[in-house]
Amino acid sequence: MPAKGDHDARRRDVSEAVWRVLAAHGFGGLTLRAVAAEMGCSTGLLTHYFPNKKALVTHALDIAEERTLQGRLDPSGRGLAALRELITDILPISDVAIEMNRVWVSSWDVALADADLGERETGRYERFRARRLRPFVEQARDLGEIAPDADPDDVATTLVAFAHGLVVQVLFDPDRYPPERQLALLDGMLTALSV
Amino acid sequence: MPAKGDHDARRRDVSEAVWRVLAAHGFGGLTLRAVAAEMGCSTGLLTHYFPNKKALVTHALDIAEERTLQGRLDPSGRGLAALRELITDILPISDVAIEMNRVWVSSWDVALADADLGERETGRYERFRARRLRPFVEQARDLGEIAPDADPDDVATTLVAFAHGLVVQVLFDPDRYPPERQLALLDGMLTALSV
Repeated sequence: MPAKGDHDARRRDVSEAVWRVLAAHGFGGLTLRAVAAEMGCSTGLLTHYFPNKKALVTHALDIAEERTLQGRLDPSGRGLAALRELITDILPISDVAIEMNRVWVSSWDVALADADLGERETGRYERFRARRLRPFVEQARDLGEIAPDADPDDVATTLVAFAHGLVVQVLFDPDRYPPERQLALLDGMLTALSV
Repeated sequence: MPAKGDHDARRRDVSEAVWRVLAAHGFGGLTLRAVAAEMGCSTGLLTHYFPNKKALVTHALDIAEERTLQGRLDPSGRGLAALRELITDILPISDVAIEMNRVWVSSWDVALADADLGERETGRYERFRARRLRPFVEQARDLGEIAPDADPDDVATTLVAFAHGLVVQVLFDPDRYPPERQLALLDGMLTALSV
């Protein structure tokens, strides 16, 4: 039992170190050497956990996904109000959200370069649109908040596009887009979609 | 003179090879070794052009910028019609545009990890919003196509957000977003912004 506990504790240490490297340097800076330096251990020890670069990158994406799911919000509102909560929850308006977005935006480079990782991102996007946003888009339509003939998949795609495209602009120019301006832009977008 | 010609021809060969590596593997796959393999030369030869990784990445961004500027469109329409042309010109609706977007999205990883490269991307975004889009947003407002109290910077930010956020979704799911659907989504977005 203690051995098992040690093992789990060590795995958590490794995951923490991987996350700190990611948050500071992105996937381009994620190497066994950087994680080892962060942990103050040898790279040899880490090859036990990560036999190759892809194993390390895959674990990093696992951590990002786990952290994203942990912080996941259940909207309290309905229709557009719920969509506003869900998009607000994505935007880089807190240090934690900035770090998370930085990691996800950085992950697109590795995901575009690898078929398996790309497929995983394709699935994440589709689940987010179809399961997280679409029910509330349909609710907004039923409530008469958006046009009755609006295609829910199109509205979900447009909202995700707006959110992620804003995320990138904010990450590169945080002073220009403080949280209150991000929220005003979101409200403008939701107003534009409203009937 | 022949020496100068040789030198320029070799530089073009190097740039072509860098671009092919970028288009195929992104910035994460951009190494001296990969460029040398693409050219069929030794990495030693390339260190003459690129003394370090940052020099290689910087040159790659130069090429991406040059190619983007070369293909730059002058809108024929006015107001929203011009904005439609400018955003259409960004979207990944052709093989060339898919390659270009793949390279730019991939560049965000290196740009977020390096202060100089990040500043350069900050500047590119601001020039695109302020110089390319904003004049036509103001024209759309003067033409009465969008609300008279719409903030031109906010509209420009929202359009760039929509475009780049759609680009990422398309790159990860091209079958779901064929060109005609991308254009329909753009038209929906422009309609939403219209009065």
